[in-house]
Amino acid sequence: MRVNGEPTRPLRSRDGRVVVIDQRQLPHRLQVLPLDDLATVRQAIAEMWVRGAPLIGATAAYGIALQAARDASDNGLHAAARMLQSARPTAVNLAWAVQRVLAVVLAEPLPRRAAAAWAEADAIAEEDVAVNAAIGDHGLPLIEALARSRPGPVRVLTHCNAGWLATVDWGTATAPIYKAHAAGIPLHVWVDETRPRNQGASLTAWELGHEGVPHTVIADNAGGHLMQRGQVDLVIVGCDRVTARGDACNKIGTYLKALAARDNGVPFYVAMPTSTLDLDLSDGVREVPIEERSAREVTHISGRTAGGQVMEVQLTPKGSPAANPAFDVTPARLVSGFINEHGIVAAQEAALRALKAPPA
Amino acid sequence: MRVNGEPTRPLRSRDGRVVVIDQRQLPHRLQVLPLDDLATVRQAIAEMWVRGAPLIGATAAYGIALQAARDASDNGLHAAARMLQSARPTAVNLAWAVQRVLAVVLAEPLPRRAAAAWAEADAIAEEDVAVNAAIGDHGLPLIEALARSRPGPVRVLTHCNAGWLATVDWGTATAPIYKAHAAGIPLHVWVDETRPRNQGASLTAWELGHEGVPHTVIADNAGGHLMQRGQVDLVIVGCDRVTARGDACNKIGTYLKALAARDNGVPFYVAMPTSTLDLDLSDGVREVPIEERSAREVTHISGRTAGGQVMEVQLTPKGSPAANPAFDVTPARLVSGFINEHGIVAAQEAALRALKAPPA
Repeated sequence: MRVNGEPTRPLRSRDGRVVVIDQRQLPHRLQVLPLDDLATVRQAIAEMWVRGAPLIGATAAYGIALQAARDASDNGLHAAARMLQSARPTAVNLAWAVQRVLAVVLAEPLPRRAAAAWAEADAIAEEDVAVNAAIGDHGLPLIEALARSRPGPVRVLTHCNAGWLATVDWGTATAPIYKAHAAGIPLHVWVDETRPRNQGASLTAWELGHEGVPHTVIADNAGGHLMQRGQVDLVIVGCDRVTARGDACNKIGTYLKALAARDNGVPFYVAMPTSTLDLDLSDGVREVPIEERSAREVTHISGRTAGGQVMEVQLTPKGSPAANPAFDVTPARLVSGFINEHGIVAAQEAALRALKAPPA
Repeated sequence: MRVNGEPTRPLRSRDGRVVVIDQRQLPHRLQVLPLDDLATVRQAIAEMWVRGAPLIGATAAYGIALQAARDASDNGLHAAARMLQSARPTAVNLAWAVQRVLAVVLAEPLPRRAAAAWAEADAIAEEDVAVNAAIGDHGLPLIEALARSRPGPVRVLTHCNAGWLATVDWGTATAPIYKAHAAGIPLHVWVDETRPRNQGASLTAWELGHEGVPHTVIADNAGGHLMQRGQVDLVIVGCDRVTARGDACNKIGTYLKALAARDNGVPFYVAMPTSTLDLDLSDGVREVPIEERSAREVTHISGRTAGGQVMEVQLTPKGSPAANPAFDVTPARLVSGFINEHGIVAAQEAALRALKAPPA
């Protein structure tokens, strides 16, 4: 999508080099950083220079490719895969992408491994763009139907950033929004700021602003009230892992919005590329590993001073501890449907298993 | 309650002077400001030097007293009452306290009005302390029962600050917690940070720390996840206005926690002094006026820099608007009960009306 009118992606590769947008600096500074080796790729994922399940996957794929150029041995590649997969525990795309590249590469003779890994990483990245565009196409009719049903803009609420910055392009939850905006449908997006890391306020608002999509940032606390007052027509969120029965793990706080949507009759959709589906798990609340991140993400926050400096400040009293679970699980019963690259899919095991079934 | 071991109240009066803790400076600085006249009292309420429904009421009562010392005419007092009541729209205690002082004062001859107003304001303040202590006594058995039911500390989640800083002393939601802590019951409090103004992270955590109550600050998004994982035994929140049928208006985000509590079988109690009950309203979602505060409370935040300076930073991209509804309404069906100075009261109209019925 666009930044200052220029087509931009959060991850680009060319001639054996990978660069990413350092998302820790947004919305205050647009800075691109090179990822020169495996260790830097791992650091970029663990420290959230890049984040978002699809983007983590694509970035990790290049991590294998960078490693293959240095040491294409089975041992070296397996070690790289383990190292990358341990960078963040919750999103399943990370393991999915790493294992996909690994399988392709290990099937090749040593001298061809680096090139094969690079080609597969490129394929993963380009497929992500196509998958998200398809999610946009399948989500668009939901928005079109709401636009026909009442006057005024369609009011969509989203949580965290499942935008183009969380993917290679288009975003997942934002893809239907960008497609609808491009189709001229009047829209307004409620952007949950998404504490503690504020990916909504920092990233989603920034994306929407650069695409010209009308939006308003709200505290995460406000969504239930807006739904009670009839000011939300549709919720669309992304996901980091979806289980076989349709429990959707996503950024902490998503579950609260799903409860409010159910209580107020607001449709709650989860944009889900098939790569985010983990058929090995069933009960999401019990089985999905939830990353516990640093307390400092709760106790401190960064922002721009009046003088234009980016500065970190402490919010809590000295001596008060904080906890920081980074994800929660929305049970399938609260999910109206999944917006997938193949269409709208019910939150039911048979429908979800069919997505990964080999063609008959 | 105590600060650095010293008994402290957020509002004190003596010899015709009123001082308050400037709560905008907490937890970084403990600063006391004088309220010398009506205009300053209104400013202190509107700009949230003082906040919390009971404390707003008591402070406003002194506003009438300060005005009566200057101009005790009917016109002057009525104008003062209007001016104070318009300072914040949602909490009903403000109007309740102002009208209570006004009724007493207007019944007196002119020369005795100032002294009568002062005495009534003092009475409101001292009654608030007694009411909250009684709320603590009635809430204590809830915590005692949970302590007996399982090993380990009783894990209470609270939202915003309904602590002693929101009252003249004890707090409402915190009163049972402080009573239980004093009784030696092991406790742990999950403190919702409570965006956008962070009264949980700034005030509740600070209070609990000075009283030695174990606690952990969490993002507002985390509470549902903790309940899903069985890590919350009880929710206690305060309220700004409760309708005749038991709909409870409180700080924005309370409704989301009530939904999560219901979904996970966690008891959800609202600490409610009778002064917060508004029998003139019934349907809270439709009828309670919800204050819309400045967008700047969402887009900017203050904190302490590494150098110890308190500084404001911007969180959002330039050009992204924000909305800031300050309260929401939790429907009576989600309220396990009200912890009132007279006991535990069901969220039912007959029970609530009985609280204000004249004694038979």
